[in-house]
Amino acid sequence: MKAAILGFGTVGSGVWKVLHENKDRVEKAVGEPVMVTRVLDLRDFPGHPVEPSLVKSFEEIEDDPQIDIVIECMGGIHPSYEYVSSALEKGKAVVTSNKELVASCGAKLMEIAYQHQTDFLFEASVGGGIPILNTLRLGLVQEKIDSIEGILNGTTNYILTRMEKEGLPYEQILKDAQALGYAERNPEADVMGYDACRKIAILASMISGKTVRYEDIPTEGITEVSLQDIEEARKDGKRIRLVAKAALTEDGVTASVRPERIREDHPLAGVQGVFNAVLIHGNMVGDIMLEGQGAGKEATASAVVSDVIYALKQRRNGLYEPVCWTEQICPVNA
Amino acid sequence: MKAAILGFGTVGSGVWKVLHENKDRVEKAVGEPVMVTRVLDLRDFPGHPVEPSLVKSFEEIEDDPQIDIVIECMGGIHPSYEYVSSALEKGKAVVTSNKELVASCGAKLMEIAYQHQTDFLFEASVGGGIPILNTLRLGLVQEKIDSIEGILNGTTNYILTRMEKEGLPYEQILKDAQALGYAERNPEADVMGYDACRKIAILASMISGKTVRYEDIPTEGITEVSLQDIEEARKDGKRIRLVAKAALTEDGVTASVRPERIREDHPLAGVQGVFNAVLIHGNMVGDIMLEGQGAGKEATASAVVSDVIYALKQRRNGLYEPVCWTEQICPVNA
Repeated sequence: MKAAILGFGTVGSGVWKVLHENKDRVEKAVGEPVMVTRVLDLRDFPGHPVEPSLVKSFEEIEDDPQIDIVIECMGGIHPSYEYVSSALEKGKAVVTSNKELVASCGAKLMEIAYQHQTDFLFEASVGGGIPILNTLRLGLVQEKIDSIEGILNGTTNYILTRMEKEGLPYEQILKDAQALGYAERNPEADVMGYDACRKIAILASMISGKTVRYEDIPTEGITEVSLQDIEEARKDGKRIRLVAKAALTEDGVTASVRPERIREDHPLAGVQGVFNAVLIHGNMVGDIMLEGQGAGKEATASAVVSDVIYALKQRRNGLYEPVCWTEQICPVNA
Repeated sequence: MKAAILGFGTVGSGVWKVLHENKDRVEKAVGEPVMVTRVLDLRDFPGHPVEPSLVKSFEEIEDDPQIDIVIECMGGIHPSYEYVSSALEKGKAVVTSNKELVASCGAKLMEIAYQHQTDFLFEASVGGGIPILNTLRLGLVQEKIDSIEGILNGTTNYILTRMEKEGLPYEQILKDAQALGYAERNPEADVMGYDACRKIAILASMISGKTVRYEDIPTEGITEVSLQDIEEARKDGKRIRLVAKAALTEDGVTASVRPERIREDHPLAGVQGVFNAVLIHGNMVGDIMLEGQGAGKEATASAVVSDVIYALKQRRNGLYEPVCWTEQICPVNA
């Protein structure tokens, strides 16, 4: 099977690494070797083994009938959307780590994928390396999931847990986090809750089988959380965490992102530093918590590769099964 | 698709319940309805909807060519082994929640399943409702899993966490646990670590691709853990938990079950009461923790039903893929 990677930055080069270092496992799981034959990036990587595969234009990928799967790791909406939709229209499978793309255009892309009966998968777009979507689609497929809540942003959890432990104010920890590379120079997407909002929009759509627009989710970040708030919560046996939530209701689904006071013995209260976690509630199994690295090159790439394996296995076996999200495609859900 | 349940006790009746209450989800996931047409139990259940399906002899199940899948919920080794092997030899898929059977006879049963190219699955045998094996087989299939450690017995975790919180001695909490139904009248299998030992034997076999005999695993229970031990650990910022471990080594795999002192901020330290959890370490993804109910009727039955869905989907699609465990069947692993 032949794969193309779009974007050879952190995630893209991580995918290359995982596909090479865990080649045996990937080959065994898919049933045949997986080769990356094209990598789209405007930069050159002289001397890197990726060099002979580098291409500068997407046409060389979409027009190559040998490419079975396109792995989108560029981020942003344009030209990701155009490339992904075009690859799907050519009948290629697509895997992405791009939460903005999925939260903004997921429904449309899933419809295109459905029309062409090919996979569009996005495990790495939520919770980095944690197999959350996989667990919803496979391990807990028998469950009616009625709610999901999680710590879906590592930067803000890093800041809150350090404020709590060290008693230092928000601004100071943020500066440290920026120096250490845990926060962007413009930290808005993380600290205002926008990143967590896109991720919970994806999860809310998956558990409800309906497209939840991220613009409709009330979102509050951590910029107003003071040391005093943290101290007051502590006195009540509680901790403050940026919690992203989605729950089914009689009318559909609700979702929110905001700092919440949770009890010290709540499973999410123990999630430290840049780790992410989700608590999934199913009608039979009760609470299941998944925790792991929510970001990072190898962890995110690992999640991408799990989707690549799934999609290529389905392709080899001539099978296709849509992700439940849009009511048209997947009406029986929840 | 038609299913038979062996044993209509706690787990068996739970499977019936999940298959009925979440019928829509099961039907959608499998692609067609799943009907339980035979239930083996020596008891009668007058007035229960299962009544017309009850049979008293296994022959009525093995000789029924319409039965696609046999769900073994009897527990114990005999006659479970004979029934399961016979069902596999008839080409039926088999799902079991029976950790003793899997730990004792798993390799042999997987060979029979392989010879007849039919599924033998056992998600519910480890960690109750937590999709651990599913995550190893699917969500983390791209990873080289180098170690796994977990709290795999709810009874002992309940006793240890209550001793820690309430400062009451082992014997007193054990009596309470027995009164509440969290511990058996003969608590040996739990408190001596035998139950956790069988579960880690199964996990060790899965991550190494080699049969690990539970008899070879050094096992120590919690009967010698005193309040003083717990207090001394607390002074060092640690907690005592019954930890079951398996790790790959150059020579193969090691495993153990024993009370360990773990740091308060270790992910397993936060696991409370009867909950179970596993920490899986992959070479790319790092640590992933899964936590949930390790026992209980509906949770365990939910895990059984996830296997039923997987096996029936594979069957419908004419696919078969062996679980990696025995070197003969599945040589490329780890």
